[in-house]
Parts: sequence; C-alpha cells; structure tokens
Amino acid sequence: MTASEVRSLFAVASRPEVVSLAGGMPNISGLPMDVVGSLLNNLIEKRGLTALQYGSGQGDPRLREQICEVMSATGVRGHPDDVTVTVGSQQALDLVTRIFIDPGDVILAEAPSYVGALSTFRSYQAEVVHVEMDDEGLIPDRLREAIRAVNASGRRIKFLYTIPSYHNPAGVTLPAERRTEILRICRQEDLLIIEDDPYGLLGFDGEVPRAMRADDDEGVVYLGSFSKTFAPGFRVGWTLAPHAVREKLVLAAESSVLCPPTFSQLAVSEYLSGYDWRGQVKAFRELYRERRDAMLGALSDLMPEGTHWTHPSGGFYVWLTLPEGLDTKAMLPRAVTNRVAYVPGTAFYADGFGSRSMRLSYCYPTPERIREGVRRLAQVVEQEVELRTAFGASTSSRRPGLDAPAPDQS
Amino acid sequence: MTASEVRSLFAVASRPEVVSLAGGMPNISGLPMDVVGSLLNNLIEKRGLTALQYGSGQGDPRLREQICEVMSATGVRGHPDDVTVTVGSQQALDLVTRIFIDPGDVILAEAPSYVGALSTFRSYQAEVVHVEMDDEGLIPDRLREAIRAVNASGRRIKFLYTIPSYHNPAGVTLPAERRTEILRICRQEDLLIIEDDPYGLLGFDGEVPRAMRADDDEGVVYLGSFSKTFAPGFRVGWTLAPHAVREKLVLAAESSVLCPPTFSQLAVSEYLSGYDWRGQVKAFRELYRERRDAMLGALSDLMPEGTHWTHPSGGFYVWLTLPEGLDTKAMLPRAVTNRVAYVPGTAFYADGFGSRSMRLSYCYPTPERIREGVRRLAQVVEQEVELRTAFGASTSSRRPGLDAPAPDQS
Repeated sequence: MTASEVRSLFAVASRPEVVSLAGGMPNISGLPMDVVGSLLNNLIEKRGLTALQYGSGQGDPRLREQICEVMSATGVRGHPDDVTVTVGSQQALDLVTRIFIDPGDVILAEAPSYVGALSTFRSYQAEVVHVEMDDEGLIPDRLREAIRAVNASGRRIKFLYTIPSYHNPAGVTLPAERRTEILRICRQEDLLIIEDDPYGLLGFDGEVPRAMRADDDEGVVYLGSFSKTFAPGFRVGWTLAPHAVREKLVLAAESSVLCPPTFSQLAVSEYLSGYDWRGQVKAFRELYRERRDAMLGALSDLMPEGTHWTHPSGGFYVWLTLPEGLDTKAMLPRAVTNRVAYVPGTAFYADGFGSRSMRLSYCYPTPERIREGVRRLAQVVEQEVELRTAFGASTSSRRPGLDAPAPDQS
Repeated sequence: MTASEVRSLFAVASRPEVVSLAGGMPNISGLPMDVVGSLLNNLIEKRGLTALQYGSGQGDPRLREQICEVMSATGVRGHPDDVTVTVGSQQALDLVTRIFIDPGDVILAEAPSYVGALSTFRSYQAEVVHVEMDDEGLIPDRLREAIRAVNASGRRIKFLYTIPSYHNPAGVTLPAERRTEILRICRQEDLLIIEDDPYGLLGFDGEVPRAMRADDDEGVVYLGSFSKTFAPGFRVGWTLAPHAVREKLVLAAESSVLCPPTFSQLAVSEYLSGYDWRGQVKAFRELYRERRDAMLGALSDLMPEGTHWTHPSGGFYVWLTLPEGLDTKAMLPRAVTNRVAYVPGTAFYADGFGSRSMRLSYCYPTPERIREGVRRLAQVVEQEVELRTAFGASTSSRRPGLDAPAPDQS
C-alpha cells in the first residue's frame, strides 16, 4: 500500500459515519486543556525570548534531563548528553537510517512492522528482511536463522529494528527472557538494535516492561516519544544513543532541521515539571484498557470461526488474521461501504505478505463505537467467507499477486 | 569549518563579554509577548484537540492559504495545494536535496552561499559548484560559464540554489533585470531554480523585491520561512513547488517527520490572523535598519584601508573582505580574545575559498554593541596588517591550505 493509498483511505475513513479502526491517533480528549493553556501562557510570559528563538541541534538541556527521568521508568539509565531530541520519533528513525544505511543494506524487522519505519527504510533503499513473531513477539530462533541466511547471501545487515513493547501493529509484547536472548544474539553477531518504544508506559496492568536498552548501553539505540504519553501535536521524540552514534545524529539533525522546535520542547518540559504527567499516563492507560476490552470482547462475541487475533496487554492495536483465502486489501472497499475501516496487513510488510491480516486500532473511538465497528467488520468478513464457500475461491483471487498467504500468521 | 567547529565557536562567542557578530539569530525582543501568550492560550482553549493532535504531512490547509497571502507580497501567486509546510526552511532544503540529488550530482550555488544549505548538500554527497557574485548578486555570465564547464565535464547539474534577496552571507540583492536574465538562462538550460527567500520582506527601504518564482511557475521551487518575520522557535517554513515536485516533497516529508508540528502551525496561523503581522514586519525592518546603519557607519569609521564590505539594503548580514594575505579563520581566536566574534568566510564555500572574508551579522546586538564590536574587530585587523607588514607574510601562512586567495573577492 503506497502512502497515497493510505491517504485516500484516511480521507474516506474520516467521514463521520465510518467507524475508523484504521488510524493510530492517540486519544487526547482526557488532557487537561486548561492546565496546558495556562502552562503555555506562562512559558511565553516568563521565557518567551528563549521559547521563540532557535535552540541547539541536540535539544534543550533541561528537557534532555527530564527525558532521562521519563526513561528511568523503563529501567533505562541514560545521560542527558547521550539524548538527542527529534521531531517526533519518526525523525529519529529517519536520522538513524540516514546514518547507517547505504542502498542495498539489510535491516531486520519484525513481521509485521511499523508502516512509518518501513517507508523510511524504503526511502533510503534499505532491504527489509522480516523475522517471524508469535504471540510473544520476535522469535529468537527465527532471528538466528535470518542472520545466517542474510550473511550467507553476502548482504550486510546494519541493524535489527524492533518494537518490543505493545507492538505496532501486532499488539504483542516480548517477555523478559526473550529480550535477554535477543540481546545475547545481537551481541554475538555484533548487530546494533534500534529499540522503538513509544508505547512502553502504556501497559494495562500498570507494569512497565524493562527496555532492552536498560541491559545494554552500547548495543542499543533507544527511541522514545511524547506523542502517546502527552500529545503528538508538539512532535517531540528522542533517541538515547551510544556516544559515537549520538554525535552523528546531532550532525544529521542539524543538517535536516537545524534544531527541533524550541517552543515544542519547552512546552513538553513545562508540562513534565508543572503537571502530574504520571497521573495523566495512568488515566491514558485506563482509557485505552477500556477500549481494548471493548474490542476484544466484541471480537470474541462476533467474529466468525477461523478468524484469530492478538491480545494486547498495552498500546493501541490488535492484529487480526482472517480465514485462509481472504484478502484484507481486496475486502477494504466493502468494509468502508459497510462503514468500518482498518489498515490491510500488507502495509506492514516490505515484501507483500500479510494479505490475510489487518491492523485494528482501539485507541481513538469510544467503546460503543468500537463494538459497532467490530459488528460491521464481522458482517463483512462473514459475507466474504460465505462468498468463498459458495464460489469455492477467494473473492480476491481476481487480484493476482496480492493474496499470497502470510506464513508468519499460519 | 566543520559543524563542530561552528559549535565551539558559538560556545565561546556566547560569553556575555564577547560581542557576537557571528550568529544569525533574529532579534525577537520586539515581539508582543502578551499577545502571543494569549493567542496560544485561546488556541488551546478553542482548538486544543486539533492543535495537540497529528496533522497532515502537507501541513494545515488554512495555514497554507495564509502562506499564499504572505507570498503575494513578493508577487508570487501560489495555490495552497502547491504549498508544503516544513520544519523551518532548513527541512525544505533537506527534502528538496533528498528528492533531486544522487551522489556526485552538481548543485550550482552563489559564491559564497548559506552554510546550512552547503551542509545539507554535502550530506547528500552533492558537488557544489560556486558561481561568482558581485555587489548585485549572481553574475549571469558567470552562471552561463559554470553551466558550460560542468556540462563539458560530463557531470549532471540538478539545480541552481540561490538567495536573490538580502543574501546570506553576502548581504547583496539581485536586481530585477538580472532575475529575468537568470530565469531565461535556466529555462534555456532546463535547469530548476531553488529560490530561498527567508529575508524577502525585510528590505530597509520598504520595497519587497519581486520573487523569481513570481515570473516562473514551473521552473522555480520557492522556499519561505516564518523564522525571520515572526519567530524561529516554532520552526515553520514552507515550499511552493510545481505539482509533481510537491507530491514528492509531501511523501519525503511524511517519511522524515510524519507531519510538521501541528501546534506550531496553528500558532503561526493564529498569529497571522489575530495580529497585525505586517506592522510587526515593519517594526523588524526598522530595528534591523538601525543596526545595519550602526554597522556600516562603524565599518566606514574604523576599518583600515584595503578592507571592503557589502552594503545590504535588507536582511541580516555584511560580507567583509580583508586585505590580501590575511586569513579570517586563523585570525578568529585573536578576535575572540579581543571579545568579538564573526564567522570566517570559508564556512560559506564548499571548496575552501573565502579565507580573506567573514560574515558579520548585525541582527542581534544593540547598535552600541555593534559599534563596540566593530571597534574591537578593527583593532584586530590592524594588528594583523601590522604583523604582516613587519614580517612580510601572512600571520596565517603557517596554516598551509587554508589561506588560498578568494578569486571571487579579488
């Protein structure tokens, strides 16, 4: 799915009568707007000349200290000198890719993986090799096999890109033992890990998974973001990187945007110091848990046999796989006609797989709307299954090349 | 001069006892902070859920309309559909370079040229070929020669990068006839122009030079910025580009940062609609004209014979060239010891030239500080001239390779 296809999809899905389970927009309706407004007013009043001026390419020093405090919740002990503030963690992905990738280099990534990362990797002409996951995330043995296969083919692996906690789009979380094992494999193979952790604080049982970076200072570049724990509109993310990488990141950031928006940075900084942000994160967890429950309940009540899905313990997403022979991309127009939208699974693969799967987001709509959306989706899936049974073939078989089975989901 | 050298320079030059004529920070002390504070407070109150959320990769539609209104002052008639909002115009430079440049491609740029552009061009492994300027900017005949020479060498020119109005760092402005001639040359040669125009509204006689884009819709990509007409801390710039280029720009922007900061965009939008921004631009012009006058007056009073400089009619910068044999980079530590800072000319060349020149900024310090800074600088230059006379050679001749003459300034 190209970016422009994604855009058209969002245009249609944004009609009010459509229940969109497609977008990944955080639900910021619970933010205390009065508090934010007065924090910003104070910021201009007291530090306006600083907030409206250029800043350093690496980012505001006080914010970098606060970021270290935020990361400590995931077990990470970082030094503010090793933090680089970025324009959302998307820019961090862009800069890391720019630094490490020459055309044709290989990046290992989960199957499926974050669509925005895949698009960045593609723009630098990296080859993505997907590594199979199960309900507990990346499978260490499959990682070993992938490394062996790529090495044997004479290609060069530059890093493993992973979202260990509350994965986007898969909704799974890597347990502690697997994290240790994957760290060990990557150390043995001298393979850098890019750990993308935008959802780490949003676990529904209140526990925060220990970041992989917490157990490896030198082999992991950690990416964080305030888009899901505060608000995406400021576009403030960061990297915590080993010293040599950090230096290159700052140079690349300067060449790319001179400096991240000072106002945004100080706004986040004021919010962290002037408001109970931990309490707000708790409130977000409650909000998303309620929606996750609504979605899992509705799926379990309504989805036809042969459909299966992941059971996220945090984050925004459920990964749903349809019975064999169905194609989520081919089905999408019918779903939108039935007033429900999702993102087809192929968007999350660099290699055309994922055609039987889809990503469902429960972050944004109300629980009622989520249940209604799943009801509409279940109707469409049932019709597809009936059609397939009646005509003995996939309704999507008319679209050759797009309904390849997804071996990772079989 | 590497980026890290520039950083160390700024670190030293930021000591309060040093008069920095080095930085390019706009002087935002005249901004109405109370108005800005209450505009932002209102923004959160009335449109908080939008301002704090993700937006489109191309940028806010209303802001893009307002940008077209801002550009109309330079004669440009653009359509909001062709505008892409960027994270400062530095990101516009980055995206344009990313789209057009393969390693080894040639970019034509003025001699000297903007240091931030050169650093971006370098990061994409473009080869910059400088084209000579005089007191009226880029010389059309030299442009013809450069195109001929590069073509003859079998290399491929991707675009001409130019700052026609109130040039950074040269402080010169291209007259209307030359703009027409350069447009004609580039059309004949099928050569795209990247017109960088952050200072266009900041002319001291109140006239706004007609942008080159105003007379060529298809051959010019126009870059604009609110960093100098409002405030850099929001990092809001833009491009106006022909349709096919615009589409690629949006895709590249999405891959790079997903979307520009929504809050920044709406803040600028509210400022444009809720405040007399044209009156504020007039106030900025007055402020910078007073400082320009202070600098030119002091230079004329104090600089030793054999030194010459440009006479900007707008913008932030004077380009000063020392008597033959002097080296501004070698001289910088002595200048900083004498509590004045500038940027050595070599920073503005991709090819090591510019060693006799320096950029002096008058945008930030008070007129008194500017005069004091020029006084200190003149002392240092005089000492250098004396040393050179006494010892018959440049004090910098100990630094081989750095004191090449700058033919463009001879």
